[in-house]
Amino acid sequence: MLSDEGMDLIFREARTHKGWQDTPVSDTLLQSIWDLCKMGPTSANCSPMRVVFVKSQEAKERLKPALMEGNVTKTMQAPATAIIAHDLEFHEKLPELFQQADARSWFEGKPKFIEETAFRNGSMQGAYFIIAARALGLDCGPMSGFSKEKVDAEFFPEGTWKSNFLCNVGYGDPSKLPPRDRRLTFDEACWIA
Amino acid sequence: MLSDEGMDLIFREARTHKGWQDTPVSDTLLQSIWDLCKMGPTSANCSPMRVVFVKSQEAKERLKPALMEGNVTKTMQAPATAIIAHDLEFHEKLPELFQQADARSWFEGKPKFIEETAFRNGSMQGAYFIIAARALGLDCGPMSGFSKEKVDAEFFPEGTWKSNFLCNVGYGDPSKLPPRDRRLTFDEACWIA
Repeated sequence: MLSDEGMDLIFREARTHKGWQDTPVSDTLLQSIWDLCKMGPTSANCSPMRVVFVKSQEAKERLKPALMEGNVTKTMQAPATAIIAHDLEFHEKLPELFQQADARSWFEGKPKFIEETAFRNGSMQGAYFIIAARALGLDCGPMSGFSKEKVDAEFFPEGTWKSNFLCNVGYGDPSKLPPRDRRLTFDEACWIA
Repeated sequence: MLSDEGMDLIFREARTHKGWQDTPVSDTLLQSIWDLCKMGPTSANCSPMRVVFVKSQEAKERLKPALMEGNVTKTMQAPATAIIAHDLEFHEKLPELFQQADARSWFEGKPKFIEETAFRNGSMQGAYFIIAARALGLDCGPMSGFSKEKVDAEFFPEGTWKSNFLCNVGYGDPSKLPPRDRRLTFDEACWIA
């Protein structure tokens, strides 16, 4: 079982940050997020998530026109912004990634099933990404407020990778946090049958 | 930063289990999964995930006809099977859940945007669910191999909750595990811009 401090770090005390300390994040640390979050489970190990870490000033300027106005300042300030995307050709790697069955054949010629599987499992991997970053002592600021069309045209012109959400990564400034919103209780969201 | 043991528990050593030890899981422990995973971030705190814990023999029999053949034995054996679902009326709770803006109005009358937001954030919450269960010392067996139509008709006849994936929960039997499949490397799935 995880320690209380561990549960606080990845769930209970962690917050979505909007203000960032002026502390850089090394490429090695960004790679460590991947090396941890890649271990989270996906259906038939399909692993559709792809990530672009937007870090240089030049790359941030390419991202900027796609951002909703309320997301511009915090994203330009963050040490890195991860574009959480998924690959609509993920199934081409299944012969290497899944040994138990010919899983590629489940997807070939089924674009709707491919899209649904990529979106579900890519979103789950995006959640693993957030937890992994927190586990490494980083803070996250995930966002849906941007133009997927503009990001895809700018960063994925070949058309097989699709952006899902953005996630600022760095060391948050707790003084910029709003009060915490409440969560649904067990009885509001669950039942035992 | 999380300890090495913590990273092993939630990511590096955890496995998707197919065989289950004959050890029950209490209702209190199932509620503890919720109390931890509910803290994970969602867009505007929209929190669309809903969970039914299928635990009684009677409820398992109701679930059985919806399962793909390869998922029947392990699911009937598991101490509990969580139906990870999402509520297509999640936005009705936003006036309570998000204080910073009138977020309900972003969704009203936009069924496609509702569905996309529920699917993305519900899948992310499903991933938090898996990590939270592991943090509490449990093992998980998430599955997509079932008929969503049959599960929805049987468990959600009112039509606003939609099943997303299933997740067996309990204490896994390590002797039933297949060899671990490889993951994509950083260079196969990511770049730094």
